[in-house]
Amino acid sequence: TIQTLNNQDEIGIVRGLAWTSVGGDTLQIEVNTMPGRGEFRLTGQLGDVMKESAQAGISYIRSVSEQYHISDEYFRKHDIHIHIPEGAVPKDGPSAGVTMATAMISAITKIPVRADVAMTGEITLRGRVLPIGGLKEKLLAAKNAGMKIVFVPAKNEPDVEEISEEIKKGLDIRYAETMEDILPVALMGKISEKKPGKKKKRAEAE
Amino acid sequence: TIQTLNNQDEIGIVRGLAWTSVGGDTLQIEVNTMPGRGEFRLTGQLGDVMKESAQAGISYIRSVSEQYHISDEYFRKHDIHIHIPEGAVPKDGPSAGVTMATAMISAITKIPVRADVAMTGEITLRGRVLPIGGLKEKLLAAKNAGMKIVFVPAKNEPDVEEISEEIKKGLDIRYAETMEDILPVALMGKISEKKPGKKKKRAEAE
Amino acid sequence: TIQTLNNQDEIGIVRGLAWTSVGGDTLQIEVNTMPGRGEFRLTGQLGDVMKESAQAGISYIRSVSEQYHISDEYFRKHDIHIHIPEGAVPKDGPSAGVTMATAMISAITKIPVRADVAMTGEITLRGRVLPIGGLKEKLLAAKNAGMKIVFVPAKNEPDVEEISEEIKKGLDIRYAETMEDILPVALMGKISEKKPGKKKKRAEAE
Amino acid sequence: TIQTLNNQDEIGIVRGLAWTSVGGDTLQIEVNTMPGRGEFRLTGQLGDVMKESAQAGISYIRSVSEQYHISDEYFRKHDIHIHIPEGAVPKDGPSAGVTMATAMISAITKIPVRADVAMTGEITLRGRVLPIGGLKEKLLAAKNAGMKIVFVPAKNEPDVEEISEEIKKGLDIRYAETMEDILPVALMGKISEKKPGKKKKRAEAE
Amino acid sequence: TIQTLNNQDEIGIVRGLAWTSVGGDTLQIEVNTMPGRGEFRLTGQLGDVMKESAQAGISYIRSVSEQYHISDEYFRKHDIHIHIPEGAVPKDGPSAGVTMATAMISAITKIPVRADVAMTGEITLRGRVLPIGGLKEKLLAAKNAGMKIVFVPAKNEPDVEEISEEIKKGLDIRYAETMEDILPVALMGKISEKKPGKKKKRAEAE
Amino acid sequence: TIQTLNNQDEIGIVRGLAWTSVGGDTLQIEVNTMPGRGEFRLTGQLGDVMKESAQAGISYIRSVSEQYHISDEYFRKHDIHIHIPEGAVPKDGPSAGVTMATAMISAITKIPVRADVAMTGEITLRGRVLPIGGLKEKLLAAKNAGMKIVFVPAKNEPDVEEISEEIKKGLDIRYAETMEDILPVALMGKISEKKPGKKKKRAEAE
Ligand SMILES: [Ca+2]
Ligand SMILES: [Ca+2]
Ligand SMILES: [Ca+2]
Ligand SMILES: [Ca+2]
Ligand SMILES: [Ca+2]
Ligand SMILES: [Ca+2]
Ligand SMILES: [Ca+2]
Ligand SMILES: [Ca+2]
Ligand SMILES: [Ca+2]
Ligand SMILES: [Ca+2]
Ligand SMILES: [Ca+2]
Ligand SMILES: [Ca+2]
Repeated sequence: TIQTLNNQDEIGIVRGLAWTSVGGDTLQIEVNTMPGRGEFRLTGQLGDVMKESAQAGISYIRSVSEQYHISDEYFRKHDIHIHIPEGAVPKDGPSAGVTMATAMISAITKIPVRADVAMTGEITLRGRVLPIGGLKEKLLAAKNAGMKIVFVPAKNEPDVEEISEEIKKGLDIRYAETMEDILPVALMGKISEKKPGKKKKRAEAE
Repeated sequence: TIQTLNNQDEIGIVRGLAWTSVGGDTLQIEVNTMPGRGEFRLTGQLGDVMKESAQAGISYIRSVSEQYHISDEYFRKHDIHIHIPEGAVPKDGPSAGVTMATAMISAITKIPVRADVAMTGEITLRGRVLPIGGLKEKLLAAKNAGMKIVFVPAKNEPDVEEISEEIKKGLDIRYAETMEDILPVALMGKISEKKPGKKKKRAEAE
Repeated sequence: TIQTLNNQDEIGIVRGLAWTSVGGDTLQIEVNTMPGRGEFRLTGQLGDVMKESAQAGISYIRSVSEQYHISDEYFRKHDIHIHIPEGAVPKDGPSAGVTMATAMISAITKIPVRADVAMTGEITLRGRVLPIGGLKEKLLAAKNAGMKIVFVPAKNEPDVEEISEEIKKGLDIRYAETMEDILPVALMGKISEKKPGKKKKRAEAE
Repeated sequence: TIQTLNNQDEIGIVRGLAWTSVGGDTLQIEVNTMPGRGEFRLTGQLGDVMKESAQAGISYIRSVSEQYHISDEYFRKHDIHIHIPEGAVPKDGPSAGVTMATAMISAITKIPVRADVAMTGEITLRGRVLPIGGLKEKLLAAKNAGMKIVFVPAKNEPDVEEISEEIKKGLDIRYAETMEDILPVALMGKISEKKPGKKKKRAEAE
Repeated sequence: TIQTLNNQDEIGIVRGLAWTSVGGDTLQIEVNTMPGRGEFRLTGQLGDVMKESAQAGISYIRSVSEQYHISDEYFRKHDIHIHIPEGAVPKDGPSAGVTMATAMISAITKIPVRADVAMTGEITLRGRVLPIGGLKEKLLAAKNAGMKIVFVPAKNEPDVEEISEEIKKGLDIRYAETMEDILPVALMGKISEKKPGKKKKRAEAE
Repeated sequence: TIQTLNNQDEIGIVRGLAWTSVGGDTLQIEVNTMPGRGEFRLTGQLGDVMKESAQAGISYIRSVSEQYHISDEYFRKHDIHIHIPEGAVPKDGPSAGVTMATAMISAITKIPVRADVAMTGEITLRGRVLPIGGLKEKLLAAKNAGMKIVFVPAKNEPDVEEISEEIKKGLDIRYAETMEDILPVALMGKISEKKPGKKKKRAEAE
């Protein structure tokens, strides 16, 4: 069944999109941070690929922490917990990478995430967004859950173009090449400006 | 067989409801806290999903610890042990989440839990209460064990309405959207007041 | 074969009762404590349930340590080792819970345990004694090993009543609801007095 | 499908060559370093052989760290994370050894790697480059991805000679006996000079 | 094949007796101690029961360390390594318990062990020696290896009496109830005197 | 295929001999040491027996460290990494014990190992050399790889005598009872003199 989502912007909660054997679904990824010893907990029956995807996300965040005014010490003095309800349902795959990373940045910076934004995409250590599968079902689930903006990987653009307009109607579909395409929108512009001349590592040749 | 329960309010003991192959049952979840090094022990043949559910509960508690006047240092300087008798019976699933969280808060704050309250529901990192299964059998078990109040997830309201009045008669069934619906009743109002304007993250659209 | 037991009171050694495929048997549970770093070792081919039962016992002891004049630091500065000979025989189940807990308290407080006392029962974090199986075979083994007093869980009273007088003759069978029913007898009254008004958590309704 | 690669030199990113059941492919190996406690993380569904290969690489780098002006303390005060997208695809084998080592040295020294260089080869603790398989498919994948220079193990020279000129045309294939044959080219001469008279451990008898 | 043994007394080397599918064999158990951090290593393809047996032995030694003038700090500041050649042959069972304990005490106290003494028996935390199997084959192996004195568990006395005199001829078979029966002989009287009135926990009723 | 070996003496590299399903082979065992925290890494797809063999070797070295002027602190302040190429080929068995130990001593003392010496033999904690299998194939591999001196366990002398002179011709086969027979030759006499009167634990009765 499609999960009915909160309609209020919250810190550390981001809507992901899942592709299951019975169709698309939304996943409300939750992140808590707390004073601790640098431990990283992942719960909600996540598979190996999904856990590695979360680790890629946290490494990306640590590598750009200066940009978001997060101190080096933060990661040593806090624990980070990612949980994906529904706890009895096994989940796997790399496509929640950008969602988990966005939720972590929101939880760390205490900037709320827009409640009407959903996203899907594999993340790399450099914040690149790689293509994923099951787009049609995911877009349908996002729409049914009342999402307005959906970020999909730029490399999935050809897949999106093949999906019928009926499904896409009412959704503002945006293409992401890197996390820097997602964060300003999801965090509503409240993140600090990008430093000019740095991190301009877009792949122009694609 | 239905477990005969203590009829006295105790610290760190909460009645959960289980759904087994032979019907409903009550689980008397016990939590001990002791001076320690921040270790978290889970015994009683708990499965992976149940263990993750306990971890979600402790993260929820840590995220709202300020609200309950629990110091940050508490979790680094104490060990927490959750045990669910009967030790030889394997137990799993996310539905004891709210019960384990309530027992932990009681054990940490040293506020006793009403002995005539039972509860069932998955917990998330933010203290949301998610729906569970086996409600009919669980309510029957609660009744047979002499429980008076039973908390069930708000999203299970349609399931409760389909259960015959004969089973529900004599039970005060209450719907919980978040842990904040459960704690004041289970801890008999002895927890500190909620801070106004904070943590008002109810899902109005449900 | 029935193990011939020592006939002298010893510190940290308690006679348990086991129920095997070939009948009852006695288990001479040994506990050593030594200066250390708070490690807890369990040997003698113990199964998961038995190991968790030992952990429930140590948590119970830590939660009542003040009552027995054991300092908080004790558990951080000592290692505790529970061993159950015969080392090649796999052992499991929760019914050695009270025996392991009694042996640990004896080893920690250096108070000897009566050599003619045997016991069986699951222990909970609060020291409650839960019912177990195989009573007839266990009582027979206790008798053959020369035991005089046998503690059984109060909830097993109906089972005891169905056992023939021939087996029970010569055994002083006592019913335990909590560890506090066992310890004064097993430790021969040498433990410190219970503090009045505290820990009166008996289940009157049973 | 052949991965389209970035066309810009980057720090900590090196193009490897993989041999899969459906042909050759390029792997864009990413390395992040961050202040930490000497932890080494490997993600992207890497098999045991590949993980050991990464460990051989890091040991090689530590053993020659003086040569590259990396302080002993570096490895104790930083975490190193190697990730290989696409995260859902299992990867194994020793042939990414030289690629992972090059990416690590780039990430540690902050010297960018030429974007048009690809490489394949097993690495040993001493930086020797051992032969690998699937050369024809790998060279084809490198060419399709727009690579200009490809390093292959010197011991694979006979295999290269048997590959048709059509495939090799346009590729500058170079033979590597040790990492010291690869690094000056991949890091564009920006690494410090080799100390004369040291590390002259070439195998002349091959 | 029967292992030819050294004929010289050595520190930390004791001859055990094994019972294999092809008959008895001797095992030359080696123990090294070295400055360290309290680690305990067990190599030579030892099974779980044998590893637990070694742990029981070290706990026994720690519990009587005062008696042998070993300081409490010893075990925190040294590593102990037990190795049983031949490294490719899996070994298991509790019957090397007394042998491993004797080798450890020799290695710790630096007192050599008589080269012509062999032994077999399960050890408990209190140094009791429990009965074992395969006695006939073990005695034969001891004899063939040139052993003069063989310690067997006191409770195996009936088994020894049933073995033909031809096998036993030339062997000085001694019965051990506790480690204190073995150590003075194996360590050639060079261990310090037992403190009178302490540790007199023999089982008289056996 | 027979591995062509380096023809130059190197620190921390020793030629072992392996016996595989397709005949003998040489293994070029590499050891790196580096400033660290006493960690011990083993890579190259080594099986359990081989890993334990390496651990026996390091314990042997630690037990004789004084003899080779290695300080106690060395092992706590360095990491040791043993790697055996080819990384994708599983390797197991105890027969590389003496080879790994020799490579470690060379790496720790920085004394090069003769490039024309190969060796095979199980090692014990005391540096005894135990017999191994597959001698004919191993000697053939050593010869094909250009080795001049081959150390084999003294107890394999009868096996060597049965091998045809054609295979042995050109090889200087030496018998080792202990590591002390191997080290002076392999390390070219550059190790410090043995202290007279100590460590004379040869087995004369063999
Ligand atoms: Ca759902
Ligand atoms: Ca673009
Ligand atoms: Ca029950
Ligand atoms: Ca509502
Ligand atoms: Ca028995
Ligand atoms: Ca009663
Ligand atoms: Ca690809
Ligand atoms: Ca060459
Ligand atoms: Ca043998
Ligand atoms: Ca006797
Ligand atoms: Ca080879
Ligand atoms: Ca000899």
